Amino acid sequence: MRDVAVIGVGCTTFGEKWGTSFRNLFVEAGGMAIEDANISGETIDALYVGNMSAGRFIDQEHIGALIADYSGLASEHTPSTRVESACCSGGLAFRQAVIAVASGMEDIVVAGGVEKMTDVDTPTSVDALAAAADREWEGFVGATFPGLYAMIATDYMNRYPLTREQLAQVAVKNHYNGARNPIAQFQHEISIDTVINSSLVADPLRLFDCSPITDGAAAVILAPLERAHEFTDTPIKVLATAQASDTIALHDRRDISTMDATVAAGDRAFKMAKLERKDIDLVEVHDCFTIAEICAIEDLGFCKKGEAGKLTEEGVTALNGKLPVNTSGGLKACGHPVGATGIKQVWEIVKQLRGEAGKRQIDGAEIGMTQNVGGTGASVAVHILGRA
Amino acid sequence: MRDVAVIGVGCTTFGEKWGTSFRNLFVEAGGMAIEDANISGETIDALYVGNMSAGRFIDQEHIGALIADYSGLASEHTPSTRVESACCSGGLAFRQAVIAVASGMEDIVVAGGVEKMTDVDTPTSVDALAAAADREWEGFVGATFPGLYAMIATDYMNRYPLTREQLAQVAVKNHYNGARNPIAQFQHEISIDTVINSSLVADPLRLFDCSPITDGAAAVILAPLERAHEFTDTPIKVLATAQASDTIALHDRRDISTMDATVAAGDRAFKMAKLERKDIDLVEVHDCFTIAEICAIEDLGFCKKGEAGKLTEEGVTALNGKLPVNTSGGLKACGHPVGATGIKQVWEIVKQLRGEAGKRQIDGAEIGMTQNVGGTGASVAVHILGRA
Repeated sequence: MRDVAVIGVGCTTFGEKWGTSFRNLFVEAGGMAIEDANISGETIDALYVGNMSAGRFIDQEHIGALIADYSGLASEHTPSTRVESACCSGGLAFRQAVIAVASGMEDIVVAGGVEKMTDVDTPTSVDALAAAADREWEGFVGATFPGLYAMIATDYMNRYPLTREQLAQVAVKNHYNGARNPIAQFQHEISIDTVINSSLVADPLRLFDCSPITDGAAAVILAPLERAHEFTDTPIKVLATAQASDTIALHDRRDISTMDATVAAGDRAFKMAKLERKDIDLVEVHDCFTIAEICAIEDLGFCKKGEAGKLTEEGVTALNGKLPVNTSGGLKACGHPVGATGIKQVWEIVKQLRGEAGKRQIDGAEIGMTQNVGGTGASVAVHILGRA
Repeated sequence: MRDVAVIGVGCTTFGEKWGTSFRNLFVEAGGMAIEDANISGETIDALYVGNMSAGRFIDQEHIGALIADYSGLASEHTPSTRVESACCSGGLAFRQAVIAVASGMEDIVVAGGVEKMTDVDTPTSVDALAAAADREWEGFVGATFPGLYAMIATDYMNRYPLTREQLAQVAVKNHYNGARNPIAQFQHEISIDTVINSSLVADPLRLFDCSPITDGAAAVILAPLERAHEFTDTPIKVLATAQASDTIALHDRRDISTMDATVAAGDRAFKMAKLERKDIDLVEVHDCFTIAEICAIEDLGFCKKGEAGKLTEEGVTALNGKLPVNTSGGLKACGHPVGATGIKQVWEIVKQLRGEAGKRQIDGAEIGMTQNVGGTGASVAVHILGRA
């Protein structure tokens, strides 16, 4: 397999973007990435688009073709493929694009993600998201994602020493970071009191434990590493791409407080990159709920089970900590346009490794990791990127 | 890139399968393919699942994880990815699986496709299918797929010498073949009068010009060619995989009677395989409507534009003709469970090349081709397979 590098990135602002359509969101992000990579559209050999549920949010399927068309690539007949894996759709679109370049089948490939969630009302949106869980055994009996993650949080807090304040600190930290990220949906800091006094959603999770409903798109451009310097002075090498599955229903898991798919994907990624945990300078993890960040840090092997709350309280995962987690602001503060999230994570790592992350820059960052989760952990994609 | 071979295939019967759920349909097809390849589940490195719209048909997304789970692979944490490209979803799932094996990233990979369309009523189903067209410029103004293909047929018949009887002969031929295929939804022969006297759907297309609403699943197993003989005495080599896009809306095309994406994908496939049209022994094309088969034969380069009707009338594309087209019965007689169709096409070619096609066997078939279309031609996948 050939080595693969990221040569360009783009990301729209995330938020309630009522004035921009699904297709135009993607075109905006793709255009930024193309400009960043200093290429023209005809150079592109293939597109991969991560999207969870345009079928339910905007009544549209056939997303690959739609995006190729509105990106001006119909006359080139550029292959374009939609990849869906619920909230992990972006991560898997990135992975497919990496494999396509690594194989030698394609050279210049766009990996993007997009979701337009605010064209439907909230109950419809919540039901669309519930399609990421097992409809027959979870959705039909009323389980929603806040409810499922609340079960994880309850189980976790019964077994491990995690305080309400430590859990809240995840959101406080991510809002702090988001306030330094121009694309974030929420660019304001909050306090532990903000979280603890916010409305109860599903006990113990409160409003500020939850990522919001968001519109947005992100895109990155890949090339063979050997050609990367044709396009950029700062290529970022893909050191590992890993993916793992687990049972779709939470109740079928071996342990509902440990995401075994994160453990498996993380192990596979470290093995592929021939790296150890201590080599990672920063991580973007899938904090759809605060408890998810706690589990992710542990399941990726950065500390023992039960220790991530203390680590968060002590500031280890803060912007100036030893292992900054979610420097972008994460799903909590950036927002979570489902299909785009996995690509935005890569965008953030690339920005950091290039030294272009502005007020949230981690000095000297050389190796970063992303962890993108589908559902309650039935799909996980882990990527490791490094300065080339 | 490594050479890739098909080492096992499976296909459920196609039809209105009210007694079988979406997930169990896939498990049935996958189980057949696993048995055919003589492997166990733990051998499988990855799955790719083609599915158009489980989100709209059964309220379920996150299809890759669901299928891995119900295939018993959750404990192996086997990577599983859903690929969507409307009616071309199966074709692109096959292509991604081929790329994954060719790259060296994976060895044993399942490419499957599934659709469960009869859990909703017909208007809902028609609207779900309309999501393959441009919702904003086609769906919202009332265009349905029979309507769009009727426009293609009208334009074609105004410009080229195609008679009503020749068009009907496509369906007559495909029903003849389907009557010899145990998995086909319609296993009975029809006459030209059956087609011409059937209900008008969208002028000039009548009921028997249209493929039906169908439940079904198909799966094939891929391996590096160099390992194929570990599993089977009759590996089938993937000689080419090609894909092309076009505008999603029909009215934006250069020529609505020519599928430029078929032309592009066909040319790419022949170039990759280093073969000529005369080398192909049989073809499975995407006859969602009779006119689509006429266009496909021409756009793949087997005859000049305007000649496919005559070819059909003369029996060239019949089971005993010079270029048998849709020996399986095609979408018309097999039925069209959208996500499964592209994989069923590969299944048919493999069965034929192995000499296992029973009453519809083409003697001595060595090289076969598939053409799978999304929407009105915005996505096309073309594959060429040959005896290894």
